Amino acid sequence: MNEPNQETVVSPTVLAAFVQAVFERIGCEATLAHQATQVLIAADLRGIDSHGVARLSGYVKQWEIGNLNPKPKFQILHQTPSTAVLDADRGLGLVAAQEAMRIAIDKAEQVGTGWVAVQNSGHFGIAGYHAMLALPKDMIGWAMTHASNLVAPTFSLERLLGTNPIAIAIPALQEPPFVADFATTAVAYGKLQILQRRNEPAPIGWVQDAEGNSTTDAHALKNGGALLPLGTDREHGSHKGYALAAMVDILSGVLSGANYGPWVPPFATAGITTYRTDSVGKGTGHFLGAMRIDAFRPVRDFKQDMDNWIRTFRNAKAIKGQRVIIPGEPEYEMENKRKKTGIPLLETVVQDLRNLAQKLGIDFKI
Amino acid sequence: MNEPNQETVVSPTVLAAFVQAVFERIGCEATLAHQATQVLIAADLRGIDSHGVARLSGYVKQWEIGNLNPKPKFQILHQTPSTAVLDADRGLGLVAAQEAMRIAIDKAEQVGTGWVAVQNSGHFGIAGYHAMLALPKDMIGWAMTHASNLVAPTFSLERLLGTNPIAIAIPALQEPPFVADFATTAVAYGKLQILQRRNEPAPIGWVQDAEGNSTTDAHALKNGGALLPLGTDREHGSHKGYALAAMVDILSGVLSGANYGPWVPPFATAGITTYRTDSVGKGTGHFLGAMRIDAFRPVRDFKQDMDNWIRTFRNAKAIKGQRVIIPGEPEYEMENKRKKTGIPLLETVVQDLRNLAQKLGIDFKI
Repeated sequence: MNEPNQETVVSPTVLAAFVQAVFERIGCEATLAHQATQVLIAADLRGIDSHGVARLSGYVKQWEIGNLNPKPKFQILHQTPSTAVLDADRGLGLVAAQEAMRIAIDKAEQVGTGWVAVQNSGHFGIAGYHAMLALPKDMIGWAMTHASNLVAPTFSLERLLGTNPIAIAIPALQEPPFVADFATTAVAYGKLQILQRRNEPAPIGWVQDAEGNSTTDAHALKNGGALLPLGTDREHGSHKGYALAAMVDILSGVLSGANYGPWVPPFATAGITTYRTDSVGKGTGHFLGAMRIDAFRPVRDFKQDMDNWIRTFRNAKAIKGQRVIIPGEPEYEMENKRKKTGIPLLETVVQDLRNLAQKLGIDFKI
Repeated sequence: MNEPNQETVVSPTVLAAFVQAVFERIGCEATLAHQATQVLIAADLRGIDSHGVARLSGYVKQWEIGNLNPKPKFQILHQTPSTAVLDADRGLGLVAAQEAMRIAIDKAEQVGTGWVAVQNSGHFGIAGYHAMLALPKDMIGWAMTHASNLVAPTFSLERLLGTNPIAIAIPALQEPPFVADFATTAVAYGKLQILQRRNEPAPIGWVQDAEGNSTTDAHALKNGGALLPLGTDREHGSHKGYALAAMVDILSGVLSGANYGPWVPPFATAGITTYRTDSVGKGTGHFLGAMRIDAFRPVRDFKQDMDNWIRTFRNAKAIKGQRVIIPGEPEYEMENKRKKTGIPLLETVVQDLRNLAQKLGIDFKI
């Protein structure tokens, strides 16, 4: 029997073909399945392993419990020259977000910027993927989404917010783009899950227990605990992390007409067993945007300044043994590497995919 | 002689008249002086004392060293239906930001949203004031600005970013609006300055020393130290606070054609004595935006959901002796109180204003 931390290296092409087959098997059209596959493979290529094929069975689970419509009809409910609200018809958030970005980019081409709020959607994968869709158009891309309620606002004992990530992608000229993509919590949930699987303690400042005290118990969320907002505690600005997560929730949920706060439907892998069954809107929501660079400045001037910005920060004097990292740079380097060498999958993930293959009757030889 | 922590309570009207007189005395037209005064008095009313009249002498200092044009001609350099770049002509940021919001609101009325990048400007006061200008129009308001380089990115020994605040103002129906307005650092610089004046230590996690170690020395910035980004250290997400501050810098500086990063001109009260004298753009920059609610959803539906959002969070079960605070609520309550009872000023601030009155030959009887 293999060790749980053993890794199997898989070719991105082989992995993508399998993921595509899974999405088709649950009823997705080939084009839609392809779009969804691209997001998961991009996550694995970029080293955000928690959001790649490790979550594939989660999407299938959503379909099994009837929360995922494999053949959605996306519909614009309302629009102006620079805005739209998209009803994702309970389809894959992975794809709905791309459709929303397409609309945002179209609008930006017309009037300078485009902003699309999505309702009635589901888990959309890595925010950065969607924000980066703006880059080839010489636009700045924005993507945010709310998520399952795992996070307690400052001083709260109740979990009212998700890890609610924000992504922004900004093009440069010769340098790789600036791509920030982060959960608005002290730590991403995926990093806590790794400690849970290994039965290791969490650093103080990531999680609170049922009484609201910071704890090293990585399993505290199972006993009334919560993830802490970015900033950790009031003295170090947790009210700012809470405000950011709240902003994402309001733009994704309230502005789109989706659910919000503790009503956001939980994703299968969030480990949430008790949640509100009533609703205050339709499904999960996202908020995406595109801003044309040349709606502000000539593209080349802007990109040259971005190169200078990036080089100034990268070359700054750093703490001994460290370097100043440009947001998105480690993921960019990882993507270049894994495209050549393949994607390493943990044995637990491989086993999960094998189970999926067997259940759905799909060939998967790894 | 008065104690430095003694407070004098001043009527907002009396204080506003004095501030207005100061701005007029340095050459501002009455209307422009009035607009600038409103921002400073709003800061004092809302309890953000570090950004109110305590900074008035800083603006005068900018004028004295020739960095402030009291009679600016604001000019739109480039625009599309949803965007504009505004040249503030070295005028007061306090006023330039209001002009930018006026343009953003106009554009939002036309095409749903409006986004204005400002260059060649100066210190704009509290970001929340400008974001809140959108509220009476049933719009969501955004305001951000970069600032004097006091902050080290994660792992950096160099100070490359400012405290770069983000504000977002979102209207509700019966509840006060949601107004988040925060520096993207672990702590606002004003709070550190209070400890400096009192010669008290800072909590670990606010500041690093010249070697990049977290220190309790509130004066560390005078000896090569730096403010830390929101998140404090890598393990607790400081790379996210750094990414947020970077985003604000790029939107305010690079997108507008202003300076950026370590080239942002220092404000008089930032205590910066060594800085780059070359430049990579024009002056200081800001980024402001307005999004019409009804470009997404009917205003009343949205506001009702906001009331429900606010009440759900406010009424959540809290840590013993605490409550869950809605962003903007403490400032809203403070404003209502101080409008009636007056603005308490520290003796050091009163003395600063008296010196200003004497220097400029203005009557100031407090």
